[in-house]
Amino acid sequence: MTNMAKTIDFYFDFASPNCYLAAQVLPGMANEIGAEIIIRPVLLGGVFKATNNQAPMQAFANVKGKLAYDMLEIRRFTERHGLSAFQMNPNFPINTLGLMRALIAAQETGEEKAYIDAGLKGMWEEGLAMGDPEVAKARLAKAGVDAEALFERSQTPEVKQKLIDDTAVAVDRGIFGLPTFFVGEEMFFGKERLDQVRDAAEES
Amino acid sequence: MTNMAKTIDFYFDFASPNCYLAAQVLPGMANEIGAEIIIRPVLLGGVFKATNNQAPMQAFANVKGKLAYDMLEIRRFTERHGLSAFQMNPNFPINTLGLMRALIAAQETGEEKAYIDAGLKGMWEEGLAMGDPEVAKARLAKAGVDAEALFERSQTPEVKQKLIDDTAVAVDRGIFGLPTFFVGEEMFFGKERLDQVRDAAEES
Repeated sequence: MTNMAKTIDFYFDFASPNCYLAAQVLPGMANEIGAEIIIRPVLLGGVFKATNNQAPMQAFANVKGKLAYDMLEIRRFTERHGLSAFQMNPNFPINTLGLMRALIAAQETGEEKAYIDAGLKGMWEEGLAMGDPEVAKARLAKAGVDAEALFERSQTPEVKQKLIDDTAVAVDRGIFGLPTFFVGEEMFFGKERLDQVRDAAEES
Repeated sequence: MTNMAKTIDFYFDFASPNCYLAAQVLPGMANEIGAEIIIRPVLLGGVFKATNNQAPMQAFANVKGKLAYDMLEIRRFTERHGLSAFQMNPNFPINTLGLMRALIAAQETGEEKAYIDAGLKGMWEEGLAMGDPEVAKARLAKAGVDAEALFERSQTPEVKQKLIDDTAVAVDRGIFGLPTFFVGEEMFFGKERLDQVRDAAEES
């Protein structure tokens, strides 16, 4: 609980490289303007299924030049923000269902920050096969997270249902991809909109 | 001919609302940093065909939320830049082949600026059926452009071939949609990248 009035909802799935990139930059912006980031775990695959959308990697697989340009913009973003540790994951795409369920458990036990940091590092800096629960748990445990307990807790019907429900609510709000941000009722999609998110939060 | 070293290539087709929006904002940015904009006419339909791409309106027709969000970002852009005259064209999509050929003729006769201003107004402020040569010529003539002569000149094999060739060269450069900008060899796609275009031009 905090007294801060300014909040930014960050709809998040480890599966998205652009969620990693946004997660590296948004905290500094939020800090500057005294805003709080609220991580909203949703399953990107579920969002795509509900909206009939696809990952850019699939949607634009046959469009000459498009994915090369997306990668160029990722490189520009990492250079601009000094994110030299970033690398695409050779195991991409990765099924993050287990990781996302356990993130909800981590939010409940207060381990959210360490969990997200370690999960993102494993996914988008170290190229680990984080869709494999044993690989994921080992990486999280290395960061001091009680991964065994979280993954066990994440198997409860309540956690499973919460991820389903929160994903459905996100789609009802208009979300079709990630990262998506809300400031009040204002929605912003993509890492290209971080400046707008900051401005909207500052004025909120 | 100018002595300015800083140039921004603006790959352009009247067919794209985002080309209209960029055309309203980029000149002010270029002026601030002493850069020259070079309009590069290409046929958006030809770019799509060569790259296997589609207009967002088609590509995302069945993706829940996506086009509504694109329209929201257009509204934000027009509000931010005071572009209250903008409106989607009820005749969209419009075949701009005739308009684009005559733009090449207008570049040759030195009428480029008046031609583009009037063409964009007809398309994206006044909702005219600018794919109809008579409608287009009437609107252009109203702006003092010798539309009859330009449309006649645009029927030469040289002009027709130039639009085909320039579109092919654009695709070879990596272009898959519009608006696209180049500063030197650096490519930028979309109205979301205008700040990056300005920064790149300023440093060039």
